[in-house]
Amino acid sequence: MNQDAKKITDLIVEVDGKQFIKRHLSDLHPADIADIIETLDEEKKKEVFNLLKTETASDVILEVNDQSREQILEDINKEKLTDIVEEMASDEAADLIADLSKEEARDVLEKLHWKDSAEVQKLLKYPEDTAGGIMQTELLSIREEMLVEDAIIEYMAISQDVGNIHNAFIIDKDRKLVGVIPVRNLLIIKAETPISKVMVRNVISVNAHVDQEEVAKIFKKYDFVSLPVVDDEGKLVGVIVIDDIIDVLIEEASEDMLHLAGVYQDEKVTDHPLKSVRMRLPWLIINLATATLAASVVGLFQDTLQAMVILAIFMPIVAGMGGNAGTQALTVTVRGIALGELSFSNAKRAVLNGITIGILNGVITGIIMALIAYYWKGNYMLGIVLGLAMIINLFVANFFGIIIPITLKWLKIDPAVASSIFLTALTDCIGFFSFLGLATLFIKYLI
Amino acid sequence: MNQDAKKITDLIVEVDGKQFIKRHLSDLHPADIADIIETLDEEKKKEVFNLLKTETASDVILEVNDQSREQILEDINKEKLTDIVEEMASDEAADLIADLSKEEARDVLEKLHWKDSAEVQKLLKYPEDTAGGIMQTELLSIREEMLVEDAIIEYMAISQDVGNIHNAFIIDKDRKLVGVIPVRNLLIIKAETPISKVMVRNVISVNAHVDQEEVAKIFKKYDFVSLPVVDDEGKLVGVIVIDDIIDVLIEEASEDMLHLAGVYQDEKVTDHPLKSVRMRLPWLIINLATATLAASVVGLFQDTLQAMVILAIFMPIVAGMGGNAGTQALTVTVRGIALGELSFSNAKRAVLNGITIGILNGVITGIIMALIAYYWKGNYMLGIVLGLAMIINLFVANFFGIIIPITLKWLKIDPAVASSIFLTALTDCIGFFSFLGLATLFIKYLI
Repeated sequence: MNQDAKKITDLIVEVDGKQFIKRHLSDLHPADIADIIETLDEEKKKEVFNLLKTETASDVILEVNDQSREQILEDINKEKLTDIVEEMASDEAADLIADLSKEEARDVLEKLHWKDSAEVQKLLKYPEDTAGGIMQTELLSIREEMLVEDAIIEYMAISQDVGNIHNAFIIDKDRKLVGVIPVRNLLIIKAETPISKVMVRNVISVNAHVDQEEVAKIFKKYDFVSLPVVDDEGKLVGVIVIDDIIDVLIEEASEDMLHLAGVYQDEKVTDHPLKSVRMRLPWLIINLATATLAASVVGLFQDTLQAMVILAIFMPIVAGMGGNAGTQALTVTVRGIALGELSFSNAKRAVLNGITIGILNGVITGIIMALIAYYWKGNYMLGIVLGLAMIINLFVANFFGIIIPITLKWLKIDPAVASSIFLTALTDCIGFFSFLGLATLFIKYLI
Repeated sequence: MNQDAKKITDLIVEVDGKQFIKRHLSDLHPADIADIIETLDEEKKKEVFNLLKTETASDVILEVNDQSREQILEDINKEKLTDIVEEMASDEAADLIADLSKEEARDVLEKLHWKDSAEVQKLLKYPEDTAGGIMQTELLSIREEMLVEDAIIEYMAISQDVGNIHNAFIIDKDRKLVGVIPVRNLLIIKAETPISKVMVRNVISVNAHVDQEEVAKIFKKYDFVSLPVVDDEGKLVGVIVIDDIIDVLIEEASEDMLHLAGVYQDEKVTDHPLKSVRMRLPWLIINLATATLAASVVGLFQDTLQAMVILAIFMPIVAGMGGNAGTQALTVTVRGIALGELSFSNAKRAVLNGITIGILNGVITGIIMALIAYYWKGNYMLGIVLGLAMIINLFVANFFGIIIPITLKWLKIDPAVASSIFLTALTDCIGFFSFLGLATLFIKYLI
């Protein structure tokens, strides 16, 4: 929050200078006003929101967090809500209306201008997470037989209401997309030039049914600011602007990491606990099964443990270190796959690197652990067994931390979702097996 | 890769139709050409790259991955490299030159036009990860006393060379930034209007020394397409365009998740193994220390284990489940903090949710585990002890999975970096303590 915004927040909380607030709030960017509103209590939120001009209110309601939006919209009157929705781009209006109750949504749609209402209803038909679900229908479309001057006139008309028109899309008589030209470039072309002479013909577009993640990848790859959306016949139906896609790009980037930790993308701290339980429990139950597998490996060595119960004390260390090293390798690999740094062509090098890392980290931490065991329990053979087990386990952890996600990728399974379960099971089992197995082999030197 | 791109790749590999390649490659977007080049072997990469026109080559070299760029630039001649650099925006040229060896960089800088060379050298002085390090110096700056028609003439001049000019920045006689206007809006204003009458005065800018992560947050918050950069005196020195910031936004989003796994942001699968070891080893050593702590908790119950070695078999399950549930809670919390969903004001609700989730998941998995233990070992009391220990540990895991990152945030320590170490230590210690402690209490019913 900038200096001005802080000052205004203080003023709202301390004094109650409505005129002052009204005058100064409107100077701020809607995102800053939203920041201020979020810090206020429920009553003040509504009060300050009601002081905003409709146009500003329309921007601010889109910027505040879910909780504040809910509170503000709780008992807003239908007319005011309709006015606010009128000011929005079609995609924003559709998103807001989708969040309302059925009756409220119907009321607002009825009160809207029939043209706006039709646009919004068309958008509401597309699933939320597709190109159609995030596009806006307000765009600048120009017929290919038009001249540059006609395009400028069209732009003048639309820019009164819509602020984020970056490109003019050129269509043929069937509304099929045939070209594109940045609006700003119309400035430097003679007014009487036919649009078809100056447009770029090789225009990249996306079908309305394409998943938003695919759309985000197109924006990232081609550095676009806006992308036209077409229907199955190649007809222009909307446009997606970069700011609508930024959140998708960010979600995409953190999604794999969340999967690795056994939580789903759309879980939030403020969700109802039952929703969280439903999302997390399946992972825990799978973990229970794999942990039972690890336990049964320990069970194999019941006699050794009986003979030397001290071994049980060191079990958590071998398993824990393997799990930790495996998570490191897995995270780097999954991210490498996601960012395209790792492919089948350089997989061999990555695996060799992983083996080297595993052995080096294994030897260093193995020696440290052997020393700890020796000084703690005064048994040098125990130290050696523990150190060796650690080297084996860190080697295994790094090797499979790379091999598992690459294999899943090859099998076309999302590497992020299933990798960590397999890996933890493996490092636990091999950690216990190598440690207790070595101890069994050398039992006569240990006791 | 689109259909055309696939066809061209096949043609490059199968036949060797240079003319065909030359003609068809130029129709593709540079990002698609880069995709094609990445799939080829080293010799073919160089061959195909050499077929590109300088302008296309300049775009393509920025789009290919690090490995391919290295291979292509390996024995390119200095003149060609200079021509390619001439075509780039100043920030891209600076990035490429920063990657060259000292001698190569000096050679290229000497061969560049003195004006370009000066721009690039100025940019090279800013640290890579600051606003100054990612901005370009090519921009449209207009003096406030100018008219709209003058601004259009300036735009015509600059747009010959630079493609991504979205805004005109208005400066006073000292080059201080005083306003902004989107270039496309110049279309709809009378040519003889003074710029100062139509510009937006409340322009948000960023100091050149600001960290790139801060810059990314500004773009995200305000939905900008470009952002002006000023020096300490408020003088306009550059502009950052959205496509330069998208990768930073994506990095930002996954950074916390990588920290949670004990790896650093800038580690790549293709890094030298020693670099990876240096980055990961400190985490493993800290983990060794906390695992030793957990081991010493097990050590407290040596007598109980001696009396009933079967308990050792179930130890990994209690600890593993706690660790897993804790990681889930931690990940959701760290992400909630990073996205601003969780603040001190709604922390209480999040903690209460966490407690509920912990108890519910604990009871369900605890019952399942108790049943497994009963059927496996035929000991119903063991099942009860195990089930209770699991409930306690999942409760603790969820509680501290929220409390630890919130506390670290409050202490102004990055919650992502330190949380998982503390949490794993805690769930291990409490898992072992509750399981072996309960077993000790009920030992006479167990044996």
